Amino acid sequence: MRLVVLSGGVGGARMADGFARILPPELLAVVVNTGDDFEWHGLRVCPDLDTVMYTLAGIANPETGWGIAGDTWEALEMLGRYGGETWFRVGDRDLATHVYRTFLLGQGLRLSEVAARLCRALGVRVAVWPMSDEPVRTIVDTEEGPLPFQEYFVRRGCQPRVRGFRWEGLERARLAPEARAALEEADLVVIAPSNPYVSIGPILALPGVPELLKERTVVAVSPILGGRALKGPAAKMMAELGEAPSALAVARRYQAFLDGFVLDRTDAALAPAVAAMGIRPLVTDILILDPAARLRLAEEILQWVASWAGRPSPR
Amino acid sequence: MRLVVLSGGVGGARMADGFARILPPELLAVVVNTGDDFEWHGLRVCPDLDTVMYTLAGIANPETGWGIAGDTWEALEMLGRYGGETWFRVGDRDLATHVYRTFLLGQGLRLSEVAARLCRALGVRVAVWPMSDEPVRTIVDTEEGPLPFQEYFVRRGCQPRVRGFRWEGLERARLAPEARAALEEADLVVIAPSNPYVSIGPILALPGVPELLKERTVVAVSPILGGRALKGPAAKMMAELGEAPSALAVARRYQAFLDGFVLDRTDAALAPAVAAMGIRPLVTDILILDPAARLRLAEEILQWVASWAGRPSPR
Repeated sequence: MRLVVLSGGVGGARMADGFARILPPELLAVVVNTGDDFEWHGLRVCPDLDTVMYTLAGIANPETGWGIAGDTWEALEMLGRYGGETWFRVGDRDLATHVYRTFLLGQGLRLSEVAARLCRALGVRVAVWPMSDEPVRTIVDTEEGPLPFQEYFVRRGCQPRVRGFRWEGLERARLAPEARAALEEADLVVIAPSNPYVSIGPILALPGVPELLKERTVVAVSPILGGRALKGPAAKMMAELGEAPSALAVARRYQAFLDGFVLDRTDAALAPAVAAMGIRPLVTDILILDPAARLRLAEEILQWVASWAGRPSPR
Repeated sequence: MRLVVLSGGVGGARMADGFARILPPELLAVVVNTGDDFEWHGLRVCPDLDTVMYTLAGIANPETGWGIAGDTWEALEMLGRYGGETWFRVGDRDLATHVYRTFLLGQGLRLSEVAARLCRALGVRVAVWPMSDEPVRTIVDTEEGPLPFQEYFVRRGCQPRVRGFRWEGLERARLAPEARAALEEADLVVIAPSNPYVSIGPILALPGVPELLKERTVVAVSPILGGRALKGPAAKMMAELGEAPSALAVARRYQAFLDGFVLDRTDAALAPAVAAMGIRPLVTDILILDPAARLRLAEEILQWVASWAGRPSPR
């Protein structure tokens, strides 16, 4: 069975890593958000793509989830001496990724082609595709005005209250051909436990993606556990947007194309409400910090979906 | 007295450092060759400018002469993993220089403005000016065909026999306004012991520079000692171009605008021939590896030129 994971950064990378530990690489693809990409000192930085790539290459920093394990900070310190901005932390090896990506893009390669080149060089055999080859930039509308995503997320530490989101460049962006092919061939699409607004939101905002998902079997893993986000500002954003921070709100968001929804045991009481939406619930442990937990959750999801065979979808 | 040093990389940086240890910074400027600049993974690298800047900032690697003392190689190793070319050695802190320079150039700053920004950030109070804001690229014509300078110099280790030199972009290049102002205000111009072909050659090839030098007092320090180059391929190039490798050949090259020529004691026998060309000779120790030797040579040159006051030039 061919599987595609829709992914943001850390949470998506961990979920993809779980499936990569079970499936042959040719049956797995990860379609990654590029809405939080940005230009950093003239270099193209793709934080989510890199987090997925580094995680699947086995070189991700296990403490932070982002960056490369054991990376050093000589270049960043020197950039700071020159007056460069250093609030976005780029390690020396990580910097090489941005330099080489920018170089290849400058030579006319598409971002998807660059992603394939970088992954191959790091021994990542799973396909890791950017959602789009065209730039899409998440703008967070806050009570202090609009902020580019990384300004909001890293520089301001998600402090300003959120009012909404916009995507610059969306009108000129298409689902990249490699990402589209992977989705069209997928027997199962798993929406990773990533931020529904700023990680999965940009992917869903691309023309045709919701329609494509409606034709496939789609399962989402909740990024919310007991009213809190597994990681990042998802719950805070929900509250600020006037929604009760809950796994149910996530299921509702994906309702139009969702066949199954994975909730944490803490949220078992919400399962009947999920089922009432015509979505199969799976209640299990969704904390997947270590590799063993990632593999276990991936296995549970595959077995669960396999068990649906021949049984009509409640949808 | 206002002094300008015309400089290539290591030899010029050491000579400039000697004068910087005596003169108030506002009386000293270094005009630096940019003919060996190149694009490295999409980044603008200016090896000679950086060598002069790092040397005057006191952070140059004393063993190599180029690069930053104690620099690390994490990014370069990672670039190599990605399939990038690693024959040009860029350390992590050095990489920050290239990233930030490329970023500022991309924002529309001229190379002279960028040089001033970087120097100020590193506490270099002496003015370090690129010879030109427009790109000029030294091409070494060899028996194996034309080679961009760094391909010849670093990648091929100066191996191929030289037939001549060309400068791409020269027809569109001008002496930069800052470099021109420094030269026009100079009471003394010192041509550093740099390669006369590929370090000083590009500066002299800029329109109007030889004419400007004719109006000033100009002294050159020989880059050749006992028929060998102090550093680099100058003597090898001379031999391949059919010229006897000798300090005298250098004096002859600069003859049209030279008032004085500094030779090593090893070459004392050449002094009369220099004088016969209408150029004042100074015979002394020209090896200036350590700071004390640099300061000593700079002092000798200043006292020597001061002693000419009131005495007519033999020129």
